[in-house]
Order: sequence, then structure tokens, then C-alpha cells
Amino acid sequence: MNHGITRRELVGAMAVASALAQKPAAGDYDMGGLKYKMPEKPEQIAMLVYPGMTALDLIGPNQVFGYTMGTRVHLVAKEQGAVKTDTGLSILPTKTFSDCPNPVDILFVPGEAIGTINLMKDEETLKFLADRGQTATLVTSVCTGSLILGRAGLLRGYKATSHWAVRDVLSELGATPVNARVVEDRNRITAAGITSGIDFALRIAAKLRGDEYARALELQIEYDPQPPFQSGSPEKAGERIHGILAAMLAPLHDQALQLARASAKAM
Amino acid sequence: MNHGITRRELVGAMAVASALAQKPAAGDYDMGGLKYKMPEKPEQIAMLVYPGMTALDLIGPNQVFGYTMGTRVHLVAKEQGAVKTDTGLSILPTKTFSDCPNPVDILFVPGEAIGTINLMKDEETLKFLADRGQTATLVTSVCTGSLILGRAGLLRGYKATSHWAVRDVLSELGATPVNARVVEDRNRITAAGITSGIDFALRIAAKLRGDEYARALELQIEYDPQPPFQSGSPEKAGERIHGILAAMLAPLHDQALQLARASAKAM
Repeated sequence: MNHGITRRELVGAMAVASALAQKPAAGDYDMGGLKYKMPEKPEQIAMLVYPGMTALDLIGPNQVFGYTMGTRVHLVAKEQGAVKTDTGLSILPTKTFSDCPNPVDILFVPGEAIGTINLMKDEETLKFLADRGQTATLVTSVCTGSLILGRAGLLRGYKATSHWAVRDVLSELGATPVNARVVEDRNRITAAGITSGIDFALRIAAKLRGDEYARALELQIEYDPQPPFQSGSPEKAGERIHGILAAMLAPLHDQALQLARASAKAM
Repeated sequence: MNHGITRRELVGAMAVASALAQKPAAGDYDMGGLKYKMPEKPEQIAMLVYPGMTALDLIGPNQVFGYTMGTRVHLVAKEQGAVKTDTGLSILPTKTFSDCPNPVDILFVPGEAIGTINLMKDEETLKFLADRGQTATLVTSVCTGSLILGRAGLLRGYKATSHWAVRDVLSELGATPVNARVVEDRNRITAAGITSGIDFALRIAAKLRGDEYARALELQIEYDPQPPFQSGSPEKAGERIHGILAAMLAPLHDQALQLARASAKAM
């Protein structure tokens, strides 16, 4: 059976391998009518993984980056071995801080509540992020990952966003908090809570391969959302539900604030 | 620091443990103003994992089910050991077919292209699904997972959906294909491509804990989507992009169709 272009050439597990096999030169391409651009070298994408992180913060973007033909996606942990995420699901890192490519094209940090607090105190992780962040083409995060970037000193003087429950904490880290789903300021791209990683990653895919490729990806992942409730932002959820959840998330907010203030004093 | 109700009581890694520690009776509850209902026993949720599957098909629902206090979520594989998904990310199953709870409250099957084709031919997996599906309270899928459910004989006489590229194949498996993001027919709940798993899981969370709890979850995961392109369905993407992607996915469609027809003959 030969259909000419197979699915593997666009997406899926073999995308990277097949793109590399083609050894594409930088420039504009056309694949079955789909116009896209390729870089000179595959983009090195380093995605931080750490205990207690929110799996969906990572997997939304990971799926889109993985479907972006020609990228090299690395799951980078402090050490080898399975990493348990906040709901108990474990994933395997592919690199450690010591063998992560240097420099990287995209540095990415996912978030979570307890996990983020721990990482905001973890000197080894902060040092790694500060190092790769200095030279990365794009420095990015989803959810509370921006607090970790901020604690690593990477958001000073930048506009940024985070999960709504802790967004204001960014100002203690030298950033200007913005209430938006995805915030771009020069080479910093930060996204709001958990599911925003999908919107975020499609925007990055458009930067990497062009709008038309990203449109095809949006169709491939059938991103035509129909949230069952109109409750996905504090404004839409209304005062009551927002108030209840904000109270439940207050310990996270307060701990993050304390750590951010301690960090500001130390600078 | 004592804020009364901590985040862990609502969401996150400790949700299940803390809910169990409380040994809640079935009935209506109020947590810091949030009204929700609890079952007599934690719901057993069996989520199939298999080589080549699309991670986001699984992780969207997994994140929501994991944040649904009191559930027991199992990642069930044919055998032990890491399972590599379609972009190369590996996750660890927590159960195998032999030690998966029986019966389960929710049976869930994610999809993918190559992985789905393989599973449509895998007698051991089909037998496991047919077995648990017989007694499960809800039989569910995201993306091409519905083709696997259908091949296991679980969608005969039901309305169902799938990824747009293969939705029509469902009719060869005795189901009635419906063009909708989430399709409920009695105890079968099937969702469309990849990202639809988030919409799907929030609807199930509402069934399990009530609308108010699901509204809080929608805010917790900040599901206020803003797709960067209006391209998430064939209708929105337009004929050109849809045609290109459909041509690329034609081998998947044709293989799935052949397997479905072989299955229909065998019945």
C-alpha cells in the first residue's frame, strides 16, 4: 500500500527520525501541499521534569512539539529514574542536567503546587535553569512553572503569566504579571494554568514551522474545545467558585510569595 | 501555617489518600463551601496504556480523574515496564491485565494511529477489554480508542465518535458514527481526537462528583481555551488543510477500515 506521503512523515513517533533521514536544509518546503519551513539544525527542546509536577502541563506541549517534524525533544530531570507526577502517573526522563544539550533552543518548565514550591528552593535546579536560560532562544513555562523561572532570575524585567492563583507573585520576582493565557515578551513565553500549554505550544509550532503547519497540527490534535462549563477562568467561574478555590490554593500562594520575597531580598 | 482547608484536600497527589483516610460515606458533602457527592466506594478507573499510544489522549483525562477526589486511577498495560508513546515519551503502567481490578467502574481506551492498528489485531488486549467492558459502569475512549473498543465488540448498537479521520470506520464495527466532540449513548462515552479528552473528562467528573465540583476542576485546570487558529475541526480548518491532512492520514484510515471489515465478517 503506497499513499505517497504517510502519516509518519508529518507526525508521530517517527517524525524526528524521518526528518533527520531526509537531512533537510533550512528553508521553505511543501509536503503534499502543506507549506512549512525547516531550520538548519533540529531544534533542541529541553523540557524539565520533576517530582510532583502536573503531567498535563508537560504533555500538552510535549505532544505538539513531538508532532512538530524535525524537533529533538528532551525530558530533563535532575537525576535518572522515573518521575512521579502530581496524580501518581510516572514518566521517564531522557536526559539529566549533566547530559542535557547545551545550548538549547527552547527551555520549558511545567508547574504544580507542591512540586513548584520545592523547586523554588532547589539550588541545583535553579542553577541549571539559569545556565540554559541564558543562552536559550526561547525561555518558556506553563502554569506555576513561571515562578520557578522567576526564582532562577529569568523573568526580571519581563511581562509574564502563571496559574491565576499565583500570578501576582511574579511581581516579587521582578516580572510584570499579565492576565492572559499566553504572554510573549521578547524571548520569554509564559502560559497560564495547566491546559493553556496546548494554546502555548501551537503558537510555538507556528514560530518554528510556520502558520500553515501549526494549523494542520491544530486539526491533527482536533483542538476545537468545548468546555462543558463556562468556568475556566476566575472571571467566568464567578466569585463563589473562584473564592472557594482561591481559599484552597491559599497555602500555595502564601508559600510561593514567601519564597519570592526571600529571593528578592537575596538579590 | 494553618489555612484550614489545604489544596491537597481537593486536588493533587494526596487527594486519594486523604479521601480514603476520611473514609467518606456515600452522600452529599460540603468542603469550604464547595458542594459535591461521594460514592460508597472509590471508583476504580482502568486506563489502558499501550506502545505507540498518544500520550495526550491519556493524560488529559488522567489529570482530571486524578484531581477527582476519591477515585482510584490505574494505568493498565499488557505487561509490566515502561510504555513508549507516539512522540517518544515513556510512562509507567501501574497494573497489568492480570492484576487489574475486576470489575472496574470506568474502562478507558486512548488512541493513536499505528498503535491503534496494532491493538485492533491484538487478541489478548481485545479479550481484556471485552471482559472488563462487559461489567464496567462506563465504557469510554478518546480519539481512535473507539476503534479498539469497537473491535472488542463493545460499540455494537451504540452511537459513538472518534478522531475525524477515521470516524466513519465505526460503522463497520456496528456503531453509529456521530460528528460530535463527546458522544454519550447509555453507558458508552466516546470522545473525538486527542484534545477532546479534556472536555470528556470534565463531563465524567460532573457525573461522579456533581456539576459544582467539575466547575471547580475546570477552573483549577484553567480550561479557558483560546486556540491560536480556527482550525481544530475539518469544518473550521477548511477544505485545503483538511484535504492535505486527510491524505496523510489515509493509510491509517484504510488499514483501520480493512481490520474493521475483517472483524465484521468474523462475527
